[in-house]
Amino acid sequence: MESMELGHHISQQFNAELENVRNKVLTMGGLVEQQIVDAVKALVDNDSQLAETAISNDLKVNALEVAIDEECSQILARRQPTAGDLRLVVAIIKTITDLERIGDEAEKIGHLSLHLSGMEANKQHFAAIQHLGEHVHRMVRDALDAFARLDVEQAVTVAKVDDQIDDQYNGITRQLITYMMEDPRSISPSLDVMWAARALERIGDHAKNICEYVIYLVKGKDVRHTSIEQMEKAARRAD
Amino acid sequence: MESMELGHHISQQFNAELENVRNKVLTMGGLVEQQIVDAVKALVDNDSQLAETAISNDLKVNALEVAIDEECSQILARRQPTAGDLRLVVAIIKTITDLERIGDEAEKIGHLSLHLSGMEANKQHFAAIQHLGEHVHRMVRDALDAFARLDVEQAVTVAKVDDQIDDQYNGITRQLITYMMEDPRSISPSLDVMWAARALERIGDHAKNICEYVIYLVKGKDVRHTSIEQMEKAARRAD
Repeated sequence: MESMELGHHISQQFNAELENVRNKVLTMGGLVEQQIVDAVKALVDNDSQLAETAISNDLKVNALEVAIDEECSQILARRQPTAGDLRLVVAIIKTITDLERIGDEAEKIGHLSLHLSGMEANKQHFAAIQHLGEHVHRMVRDALDAFARLDVEQAVTVAKVDDQIDDQYNGITRQLITYMMEDPRSISPSLDVMWAARALERIGDHAKNICEYVIYLVKGKDVRHTSIEQMEKAARRAD
Repeated sequence: MESMELGHHISQQFNAELENVRNKVLTMGGLVEQQIVDAVKALVDNDSQLAETAISNDLKVNALEVAIDEECSQILARRQPTAGDLRLVVAIIKTITDLERIGDEAEKIGHLSLHLSGMEANKQHFAAIQHLGEHVHRMVRDALDAFARLDVEQAVTVAKVDDQIDDQYNGITRQLITYMMEDPRSISPSLDVMWAARALERIGDHAKNICEYVIYLVKGKDVRHTSIEQMEKAARRAD
């Protein structure tokens, strides 16, 4: 398989276009990372202003998605890329869909935080949400880092974290159900906390998707819907 | 803007490739439609066998996603399509991501149905789930129909239905919360019903996304993250 280097085109303009769109993906990634951090902190600290920030930043994320998609279409039409360049463009089109949905989930946590702030505080589970939030944020950051560095080993490592996220999420859900059964007045706020945990769990799924695109991009192998073992095998295959 | 006709290429082979991939999308759509119908019926009728069918059909849906994606990449590399053809390929790549996630949600409903069948029956809310399920299934079917016929008017009509789905979902959630507060023993099964309603609500979101791609495909205008009014304006814009 051809080597995955950017900046190897005779056309300087084409190099610049690919580099530009790749940088925009990382900018979009940075924005959704901040959205996750803000939304979780808003919920845990009952900070309405931060919740509003997480919510309003979704507009920027959406605008970037549309702009990057448009640039990708133009590159496909004008440059008619093949091989690794084509995979880069396809991987970007898919990655930004997941980033946009991560932004949506963070926005949801922002709304849940505002909703919760109107109810009697039920902070018992906030430590678990904070812990899950940090874990999920690291996962997104590391997935974007794997994408930036085209690092398939890291992509596999990050994808593996998703199982831990799922376990943490299931633990929080079980605790919340017990809590709701003990005190039915806590049902409504507990559900908000449960939706927030669910949103974080889904962010983990999207981060895992991004790891799969990195392997597709570098190795040319579609590893979606396969096991972690198959993913590792594809990642370690000689180029 | 150039007219959106398939079968206008000098290369018969290219025509055949586009037609083939388009047909596969519709096959995949038919599969996820059946998954929705089976999963909802499995839940409402407590039919474990049907739940297993909905779950196992997700493998077929996933395999189709991977196959169609591969064909799209090959068309991009070999045919280097432009204008309407390029938009068709990009719209297909996006549509199948949403179809795959619709399949995931239907699979989830299948699992919830199996989980629920082990608990004391709590059928009070099943009529509402059935009603929501039928509504969502119609929405998916009509979105796929708009895609098949490149019908932007229908795409707008279907996208509008999403608000009704959201209202129905919110109504079910409110009822379930009241029910859980009245009878804390019902919390666990009620949550399963709530997750099923949530899965159906999300299927509605994905169907709306497909409608947006139809407008992009036919009109060349990206209407994501805009209002229904802007979507209507784009759909009615003269070619």
